[in-house]
Amino acid sequence: MQILIINGPNLNLLGKREPETYGRESFEEVLERLRATYPSIQLDYFQSNIEGEIINHIQQADGIYDGIILNAAGYTHTSVAIGDAIAAVGVPVIEVHISNVYAREPFRHISHISAQCAGTISGFGAGSYLLALEALKRKSENLFFPSK
Amino acid sequence: MQILIINGPNLNLLGKREPETYGRESFEEVLERLRATYPSIQLDYFQSNIEGEIINHIQQADGIYDGIILNAAGYTHTSVAIGDAIAAVGVPVIEVHISNVYAREPFRHISHISAQCAGTISGFGAGSYLLALEALKRKSENLFFPSK
Amino acid sequence: MQILIINGPNLNLLGKREPETYGRESFEEVLERLRATYPSIQLDYFQSNIEGEIINHIQQADGIYDGIILNAAGYTHTSVAIGDAIAAVGVPVIEVHISNVYAREPFRHISHISAQCAGTISGFGAGSYLLALEALKRKSENLFFPSK
Amino acid sequence: MQILIINGPNLNLLGKREPETYGRESFEEVLERLRATYPSIQLDYFQSNIEGEIINHIQQADGIYDGIILNAAGYTHTSVAIGDAIAAVGVPVIEVHISNVYAREPFRHISHISAQCAGTISGFGAGSYLLALEALKRKSENLFFPSK
Amino acid sequence: MQILIINGPNLNLLGKREPETYGRESFEEVLERLRATYPSIQLDYFQSNIEGEIINHIQQADGIYDGIILNAAGYTHTSVAIGDAIAAVGVPVIEVHISNVYAREPFRHISHISAQCAGTISGFGAGSYLLALEALKRKSENLFFPSK
Amino acid sequence: MQILIINGPNLNLLGKREPETYGRESFEEVLERLRATYPSIQLDYFQSNIEGEIINHIQQADGIYDGIILNAAGYTHTSVAIGDAIAAVGVPVIEVHISNVYAREPFRHISHISAQCAGTISGFGAGSYLLALEALKRKSENLFFPSK
Amino acid sequence: MQILIINGPNLNLLGKREPETYGRESFEEVLERLRATYPSIQLDYFQSNIEGEIINHIQQADGIYDGIILNAAGYTHTSVAIGDAIAAVGVPVIEVHISNVYAREPFRHISHISAQCAGTISGFGAGSYLLALEALKRKSENLFFPSK
Amino acid sequence: MQILIINGPNLNLLGKREPETYGRESFEEVLERLRATYPSIQLDYFQSNIEGEIINHIQQADGIYDGIILNAAGYTHTSVAIGDAIAAVGVPVIEVHISNVYAREPFRHISHISAQCAGTISGFGAGSYLLALEALKRKSENLFFPSK
Amino acid sequence: MQILIINGPNLNLLGKREPETYGRESFEEVLERLRATYPSIQLDYFQSNIEGEIINHIQQADGIYDGIILNAAGYTHTSVAIGDAIAAVGVPVIEVHISNVYAREPFRHISHISAQCAGTISGFGAGSYLLALEALKRKSENLFFPSK
Amino acid sequence: MQILIINGPNLNLLGKREPETYGRESFEEVLERLRATYPSIQLDYFQSNIEGEIINHIQQADGIYDGIILNAAGYTHTSVAIGDAIAAVGVPVIEVHISNVYAREPFRHISHISAQCAGTISGFGAGSYLLALEALKRKSENLFFPSK
Amino acid sequence: MQILIINGPNLNLLGKREPETYGRESFEEVLERLRATYPSIQLDYFQSNIEGEIINHIQQADGIYDGIILNAAGYTHTSVAIGDAIAAVGVPVIEVHISNVYAREPFRHISHISAQCAGTISGFGAGSYLLALEALKRKSENLFFPSK
Amino acid sequence: MQILIINGPNLNLLGKREPETYGRESFEEVLERLRATYPSIQLDYFQSNIEGEIINHIQQADGIYDGIILNAAGYTHTSVAIGDAIAAVGVPVIEVHISNVYAREPFRHISHISAQCAGTISGFGAGSYLLALEALKRKSENLFFPSK
Repeated sequence: MQILIINGPNLNLLGKREPETYGRESFEEVLERLRATYPSIQLDYFQSNIEGEIINHIQQADGIYDGIILNAAGYTHTSVAIGDAIAAVGVPVIEVHISNVYAREPFRHISHISAQCAGTISGFGAGSYLLALEALKRKSENLFFPSK
Repeated sequence: MQILIINGPNLNLLGKREPETYGRESFEEVLERLRATYPSIQLDYFQSNIEGEIINHIQQADGIYDGIILNAAGYTHTSVAIGDAIAAVGVPVIEVHISNVYAREPFRHISHISAQCAGTISGFGAGSYLLALEALKRKSENLFFPSK
Repeated sequence: MQILIINGPNLNLLGKREPETYGRESFEEVLERLRATYPSIQLDYFQSNIEGEIINHIQQADGIYDGIILNAAGYTHTSVAIGDAIAAVGVPVIEVHISNVYAREPFRHISHISAQCAGTISGFGAGSYLLALEALKRKSENLFFPSK
Repeated sequence: MQILIINGPNLNLLGKREPETYGRESFEEVLERLRATYPSIQLDYFQSNIEGEIINHIQQADGIYDGIILNAAGYTHTSVAIGDAIAAVGVPVIEVHISNVYAREPFRHISHISAQCAGTISGFGAGSYLLALEALKRKSENLFFPSK
Repeated sequence: MQILIINGPNLNLLGKREPETYGRESFEEVLERLRATYPSIQLDYFQSNIEGEIINHIQQADGIYDGIILNAAGYTHTSVAIGDAIAAVGVPVIEVHISNVYAREPFRHISHISAQCAGTISGFGAGSYLLALEALKRKSENLFFPSK
Repeated sequence: MQILIINGPNLNLLGKREPETYGRESFEEVLERLRATYPSIQLDYFQSNIEGEIINHIQQADGIYDGIILNAAGYTHTSVAIGDAIAAVGVPVIEVHISNVYAREPFRHISHISAQCAGTISGFGAGSYLLALEALKRKSENLFFPSK
Repeated sequence: MQILIINGPNLNLLGKREPETYGRESFEEVLERLRATYPSIQLDYFQSNIEGEIINHIQQADGIYDGIILNAAGYTHTSVAIGDAIAAVGVPVIEVHISNVYAREPFRHISHISAQCAGTISGFGAGSYLLALEALKRKSENLFFPSK
Repeated sequence: MQILIINGPNLNLLGKREPETYGRESFEEVLERLRATYPSIQLDYFQSNIEGEIINHIQQADGIYDGIILNAAGYTHTSVAIGDAIAAVGVPVIEVHISNVYAREPFRHISHISAQCAGTISGFGAGSYLLALEALKRKSENLFFPSK
Repeated sequence: MQILIINGPNLNLLGKREPETYGRESFEEVLERLRATYPSIQLDYFQSNIEGEIINHIQQADGIYDGIILNAAGYTHTSVAIGDAIAAVGVPVIEVHISNVYAREPFRHISHISAQCAGTISGFGAGSYLLALEALKRKSENLFFPSK
Repeated sequence: MQILIINGPNLNLLGKREPETYGRESFEEVLERLRATYPSIQLDYFQSNIEGEIINHIQQADGIYDGIILNAAGYTHTSVAIGDAIAAVGVPVIEVHISNVYAREPFRHISHISAQCAGTISGFGAGSYLLALEALKRKSENLFFPSK
Repeated sequence: MQILIINGPNLNLLGKREPETYGRESFEEVLERLRATYPSIQLDYFQSNIEGEIINHIQQADGIYDGIILNAAGYTHTSVAIGDAIAAVGVPVIEVHISNVYAREPFRHISHISAQCAGTISGFGAGSYLLALEALKRKSENLFFPSK
Repeated sequence: MQILIINGPNLNLLGKREPETYGRESFEEVLERLRATYPSIQLDYFQSNIEGEIINHIQQADGIYDGIILNAAGYTHTSVAIGDAIAAVGVPVIEVHISNVYAREPFRHISHISAQCAGTISGFGAGSYLLALEALKRKSENLFFPSK
C-alpha cells in the first residue's frame, strides 16, 4: 500500500513555530513515527508553499498511490483550484488538520476542499495524520468504511 | 478504558433508511464490530431523539468515562445547548459524522459543537466511530495526540 | 385509512390563548369536527412540546399510518432534526399552519421541514388540517395528486 | 359561487414540458376535472405571461368573483406589484403552486405575494387547485375557516 | 410647457382602495386640481399595470415632453429595465411617491430608478405630484435648480 | 407572592464548572440566599435540559404564579418555541443571564425570547435573579414599573 | 407662518467646496432667495456640525415653528438619535438633500431619519429647500397634502 | 437554418442613445450585416419592452427555430419567468450582451437566465450576436460544440 | 455611596412625549422617587443630546463615583466612541433602557456599549434605573454579585 | 496574427477526467482542430496549475501577441492578482469557459477577471475557444466589434 | 511648515488607561518628543470627544495648515460626516491609528474616512504620528510622494 | 541593519503601466532612491508573481533580516497562506500599499495579512516604502515605537 502525504503552506515550519498550536515535533519526526506505526505502508511525503505545485502532485499521484492525505493549510480556505484537482482524480483524498480549525477564526471554518474529499479529520495534532492512515488501511481491508 | 458513544436524532433508524447515504448496517451491528475491534475498551451506547437527554448524558458521563464519541446528527447544526454542555464537562468529546456533511446542504456546514470538541471526524461511514476510538486509545497511550 | 395528526409546541393551548390569531376552538373540538367531516378516516392525534418526541412519533408512524399531518409550530423554523426524520420515513407528511406564517415575523418565513414534506398548507385556520385530510383522501383515490 | 383561476408565466405549457415536475395533463384537462368535481361552482380561467395583465385581472375580479386562485409562477418571487394588487382588492386570493417550491432553488423560497394572500397551498400537483377550491367552498359555508 | 405623468401598477385604483394610505381622491380628481393649479402647463397622463408599457411611454416622451413625473409604484423596487429606460432618454424624470416609502416594508426602501432620476419626492400624498410640477416649472425658469 | 424560577440547559452544573464565568455557588445555594433576602415571596424552582419541558412549565405556571424568572441559557439563542410559549401565557416573564451575553460569542447576542419578555437583566452573576425578584416585588407594589 | 431650516455637518461650506456637486451659491444667498420667493413666511436658519445640537434645535422648535426643513447631511445615514428626536416632536419635519443621494455611494442610500419625516425631497439642488417650503405652505392651506 | 433574435427592453433605442456604451449602429443595421455575413441562415428578429411578450416569443419559437439568440437586457437580472421559459422549451437559447455586464454595476452581475442557456457571450458589442450565430452554425455542423 | 445617572439624547423629553412608550413622569420626578427609595445614596444626574459630552462625563466620573447608570438612548446603537469610553474608565457602568429594546425595530437590537458594561437592564420602565441602583448597592455589600 | 491561449489549473487533464462535463478530447486535439480551422492565425499555448505563472505569461504576452484567450479555471473565482495582470497589460484578453459556469456551484458565479477582460464566452465546450478566435479575427478586420 | 494634529474621543486618556494597548506616555509627552524630532515644523494640537468639533477644526484648518494628522479613534468607524469634511477641504489629511486596528474587533476594520484621506498609517504606537509627520515633510520636499 | 522588501504580483510592471495610479518610476529607481536616503541600511529586494514564493521568502528571511516590508498587491485580499507565514516568523513585517486601497474597489478593503503585521502604511506612493523604512529604523533606536 502506497500513501502520499501532501502538506501545504507553512507546514515546513512545523515544530519550530507556534508550538502551543502545532506541537514541538518537526514533520520529519512525525513522519518517522507514522512509518514506525504502519511499517507495511509505503509513505511518501511532499510539502510546498505553492498552490499550483500541490495541484501538480495531486494530479501525478493518480494511478500511483492508494490514497492522499492532504493538509492544505491556508489554501484550504481559499483554493477552488485544489478542490477541482481532488474532484478530477480517482485517488481518494483525506483532508486533515492539526489544530481544531472550527475553534479558530471564522475564515478557517470555510473549506473549498472538504466537499471533494473522502473524509475530514481535524484537531488531533499530528494524530490527525495517523487516523487518516488508519482510515486508508481499514478501507483497503474493506472494513467499516464506505466503498467510495 | 471506558468510552460512551452518544447518537443523536434519527440515528436509531441506521441501516433501515437511506442506505445509499448511511449504509445498510444497524448501529447495533456497528457496535458489535467496534467492540470486536477494540476488545479492551468498555464501550457504552446511548441514543436519543431528544436534545436535552443528550445533554443529560454528556453531563453524567463526566468523571465516569474517558471519552465521548458524539454524533449529534441534526442537532449539530442548531444546538448551542449541546455545545455548552461539551464545554462544561471535563471528558474529551470527539464529534463524528457518518456522511461527509460538507458535501451536503449548506445548513449542514455549520456546527455549534465543533469548536468545543477535541476533534472532528467526518465522512468515513461507520468507520468514523472506529477512528474516534483509535484516537481515544492512542491519546491514552500519550502518542501523537495533544494532551488537551 | 389511518392518519396521524402531530401538533408541536404550544398548540395544546389552542382556543385558550391569542384567539385573534389562532381562533377560539380547542384542538379537541377541531378534531371532533374533522372526524365528523371524514367519518371513514381513522384520525389519531399527538401533541408534544418536546422536539424529540415529535421525531419519535414520526418514526413510529412509519408503516402504520397512511399519512401524517404535521404542524411543527415553533420547531418549523429551527429543527433540522424533524426535517431529517421526515426524510427518513416512507409515510407522506403534509405541513400545515393555522396562521399565514408569511404574514408574520421574518424568522417564521424560514422552514427546515417544507422541503421534505409532500406539500404545505398555510393560513386557513383550523381549515388547514381539513385541507390536508382532503389531500390525503384524494391521493388515496389516485385523483389529481402526484403519486409521490 | 364564482371563482377565477389565474395562472402566470409558462403555465400555458402545462402537460407539454417537464412532465416529471409538472405532470402530463394540460391545464384545460385539469380545469375540466375541477369543474366535474365542483359542479356548483362557476370556474373561470385566465392565463398570461405578462405581469401587468395578471394585475389587471386581479383588479377586475374585485366585486365579481368570490375568490381568486392564483399560481403566479415565476412572478411569485419577483413581483411586488402583484402583491400590491392582492392587497388592494377585497376578494380573497389563495396562492397555489403545483410543485413543492421549498424543495427547489433558493430563489423560489421567497414570495412577494404570500403575505397578502388568504392562504398558501404548495406541492400537491394539480391537486393544489382542488384544495384551494375546497377551501373557498368551505369558507362560504362558514365552516372551519377564519372569517377574514 | 408639456409634462407627462406616468403612474405605475395599481395606481388606477387610487381613491377606491386603502384610503388611509393613499387618500380618497381618484387620480382623475388629482389631475384636475393639478391642471387648475398650473394652467400654463399642458399635463398629459398615462397609467399602466404593465412594466413594458411604462418603458414604451418613457421612450416615446423623449423629444416631445419637457419632463416626466413618474410614480412607478411596485415596479420602483424591482425594475432594472425602467431604470435603464430613464437613463436612455434625454427628458428629465422626477420620481414621486404618494406615501412615505421609507416608513413602510424594507423592500420598499430599495429603488432601481432613483439613481437615474433628476430628483425624488416622497410622502406628500397627491402633493408629491404638485411639488414635481413646481420643480419642473422652476427649472424651466432657471431658478434654484441645477441645470442638469 | 409566588414566583417560579426556570433554569435551562447546563445550569444544573452551576458552581461546579467554569467558575470564572458562572461563579462557585451552586444554584441551590443561590436559591437559599434569594429566599433569605425575600422571605415574603414563595420561590419555586425548576431546571431542565429539555426545551419542551421548559415550555411545559411556562404553560403550567400560567394562572398560578405571579411571575417567572427565566434563564433559558443555550435555548435563548435558538428556541422560537420558548418565545412562543412566553407570548402565549399571561404571567410576566423576566429574562435573566448570569454572564454578560453581549461580551461573549456573536451567536449569544441573538435572543428569540427577549421580545416576548417583560424585561431583560444580564451580567450581574447570581445577582441577576435577585434583581428580577426585586422587579417583580416592586411591580406588585405598583411602584416605578409599567403596568403591563 | 414660521419655518426653521436646519442644516447639518459641512453645509456651512456650501458654495465654497465641490461646486460641481453642491453648486456655487453660499447657503446665505440661497436663504435670501428663498425669503424673496416666500415673503409671507418667517424663515429662520440654524447650522451645526454637532449632532446633538441639531437634536437640541429640533426639540426647541416644537410648539414654536410650523415646520422644520432638515438637511442632516452626513448624519442622515448614521444618526438614530436625530431620527428619535423627529419622532418625539409634534412639528412636521421635511427631509431635504441637495444632491441625489441615491446616485452616490451605497452608504448614502440608507437613512435613519426618512421614516420619521413627513416627506423627503432629494436631488433638486438648492431647489429642494424651495420645494419643501412650497409643501409646508400648501399644507397650511389644506390643499393636496395629507393632514398628518 | 432558422434563428430568432430576441432583444429585450430599451434595445430598440440602439444607436440613438449612449453610443459610448452601445455603439452608433441601430439594430436594424446590425441585422443587415449579420444577414450578409451568414446568408444561408434565415434570421428573424423580435424586440419588446414587455417581459411577458419575450416569454411568449420564446415559447412560440419552440419547434420552429433551430436556436434563439436572446439579449434580455434589464430583464436578465430580474426575471425568473424568462429563465423558466428557457428551461421549458427545447430550442437552444444563447444569452448575449453588447456591453461587458461584469464591468458595470453589481446588480448587472446577477443573471436569472444564464443557468438555463446553452451558453453566454458578453462584451463584444454587436459582435456578440455574430459569435452566437457562429456558435449555432458550428453546432449544427457537429463541430467543436457539445451536443446538448 | 455616589452614583451618576447619565441620560442620552431625547430623554430630556421624558414624560412629555410618547407616554405610551416611555411613561408620563418626567425624569426629574423619577429622580426624586429614586432618591427617596435609596436615601443613603448620593445620586447625581446628567443629560445631554451630544455624544461627546456623554463621553466627557463618563471620563470625569472615573475616581469620583462608585458607579454610572447609563441610558445612552439612540447612541446605544451607533456609538463606538461611548463604548470605548466605558472600556477606558475604572468605574462600573450599568446599561439601562426604559422600553424593551428587543421588542422594537431591528436596529435597536444592536448595542455598541453592552459588551463594555457590567450589566444590562432593559424593559422595566423607570424601574430599570431602580434595579441598577439596587445592583450597585448590593455590589458594594459584596452580596450576590461578581466582584468585577 | 498571433494569439496565445492560456489554460489554468486542471485543464491539463482535459479529456481524461469528468468527460460528461468537459468532453473527451484532450486540449492538444482541440488545439489541432483550432489551428486547422484558423490556418492564418499563429496559435501558441500555455498551461499551468500555478497562479503566478499564469500572471507571468499574461505579462510577457504584452507587445508580442494580438490577443490572449484565457481559461483561468478555478483561479477565475479567487484571483485578484490575475485580474490585476489583465488590467496592467495592453493586449486584449478574452475569458472563456468550457462548461456553463452559471449552471454550477454558486462560488463559480463570481469572477475576479471578467471586469478586466474584453469579453466573456462561457458554456460552448471546446467551441468557446473557437468563438474567442473568431472574435479576435473579426476584431482585427474592424468588423462588428468595438475598437477597445 | 504648519501641521495640525487632531485626536478624537478618549485619546485625552492616553497613557492613563489600557497601557498594554496604547502605551504609558500621555499625548502631551508624545507631542513634546515629536516637536523635538521635527523642530522646523510648527505642530498644533486639538483633542475633542465631540464629533462635530472635530469637523469644525478640519474645516478651520483649511488654508492655514499644510497638513492634518487625524486619529479619529471611535469616530473612524461610524462618522460619515468627518469623512465628508475631509473631502470638502483642500488640506491633505493623514489617518493614523496607535494600535493595529485590523487586529482588533471586526467593527474596527471599517473606516468611513480612509477613502478621503491622503494615506493611512496604523499600528506603530505613537510612532504612527511620527511617520505621518515624516510623510508631510517629505511631500513638501517633493520627494517620493505623489503630488496629490 | 538588514531589511528585505518583498513585492507581490504585477509590481514588476511598476512605472510601465497605469502611471496615473502607480507613478512613472520603476521599482528599481525607487530602490535606488531608498538606498540613497537610508545609506546605513542594507536593503534587499525580491519580487514574485507566485504566492508560494512570497511565502518562501518570508520564511527564509526569519533570523536573517531585521524587518520585512511587504507589498502583497493582489494577494493581500485573498491569501490566508501569506498571513499565516507572517504569523509564523519572528521578523516584524510592515504592510505597504502604493495607492490608497480604501479608495478603490470594495474587494481591496479586505486584507488577510494586516492583522498579522506590525503595522500598515497605505496611499503614499513610493513614499509608503520610505515610511516603512523610517519606522524600522526608529524602532531599532527604541524611539516612539512599541517593542513588539
